[in-house]
Amino acid sequence: MNLTYFRSAAIAAAIAAATCFLPLTSNSVGGSHDKISPIFGVEIPAGYRDWRMISVAHEAGDLNDLRAVLGNDIAIKAFREGTRPFPDGTVIARLAWKHVPSQENNAAFGREQSFVPGVSTNLQISVKDAKKYIETGGWGYGQFEGGRANRSEALMKTCFPCHTRTKPTDDFVFTRYAQ
Amino acid sequence: MNLTYFRSAAIAAAIAAATCFLPLTSNSVGGSHDKISPIFGVEIPAGYRDWRMISVAHEAGDLNDLRAVLGNDIAIKAFREGTRPFPDGTVIARLAWKHVPSQENNAAFGREQSFVPGVSTNLQISVKDAKKYIETGGWGYGQFEGGRANRSEALMKTCFPCHTRTKPTDDFVFTRYAQ
Repeated sequence: MNLTYFRSAAIAAAIAAATCFLPLTSNSVGGSHDKISPIFGVEIPAGYRDWRMISVAHEAGDLNDLRAVLGNDIAIKAFREGTRPFPDGTVIARLAWKHVPSQENNAAFGREQSFVPGVSTNLQISVKDAKKYIETGGWGYGQFEGGRANRSEALMKTCFPCHTRTKPTDDFVFTRYAQ
Repeated sequence: MNLTYFRSAAIAAAIAAATCFLPLTSNSVGGSHDKISPIFGVEIPAGYRDWRMISVAHEAGDLNDLRAVLGNDIAIKAFREGTRPFPDGTVIARLAWKHVPSQENNAAFGREQSFVPGVSTNLQISVKDAKKYIETGGWGYGQFEGGRANRSEALMKTCFPCHTRTKPTDDFVFTRYAQ
């Protein structure tokens, strides 16, 4: 490798790094922007499906979903110890699926009572970084559908205003740890 | 320590081991039987609350609960790879809480739609050991309330008959892995 080649490669890498936070090995069909949320630049965290469970929920009405809320190690520790505000590095993953009846379970039980996850609706990721996200209470947000970031800036602008409706002592987080 | 003392201690330990499967350091208020299910001798697995999530569910009707199903490493691997029957050592933990409205969330959203975990109802543990539990499809069961085993043999006798209502290919397990 000669010096000219090295310099060219270094410049190309610097330009790529400056224009996109993603690794150069991105294999997203729709381009690298599919992986990061607008405004906040939040990505799907690697291995989030292996994270421990904070809680579950059921949103009825229009949403009609079943939810699971998982957290990285920093999140779990903070939830268990009641640490507020959440420390930097806290990441919360909210999974949701359509709330659908389980025909199989209902047939087994002889009653229409069992609801299970249907198709995934979306994945929402909340990242705590008090400095980076100072304008939104220290939280960055992303919503992902089928593994791709929802690129609507309008949608992203609804996240924080909604989370401001939590109690002041909750550091903008709705979820409680399920014992 | 002289030999007589050693022999006495060994005999005492042997008697204890023969009459009770639990460690001698049990600190259960109600005695060691509070920790194991009747018939199957299943205990609450250490660290189960740190296990990864298999799925969630909502049982309406009389049960009126929200559920989370967690699994140990063997269970998670089998669910993800579709291994059936489940290998020995599979342990599945089904947590459940009352399905209660979140007044706080509903006030924030301006709609009556949000349901979250209330008080814990019970914890059910399923353990796969094809040889030990040969008479119940290879599964041993336990139900725990407030950390104590439900000691009703009649209840324990309802577990396997209900699980036989699953499809033959499901190895007596209702839950599906939530993607």
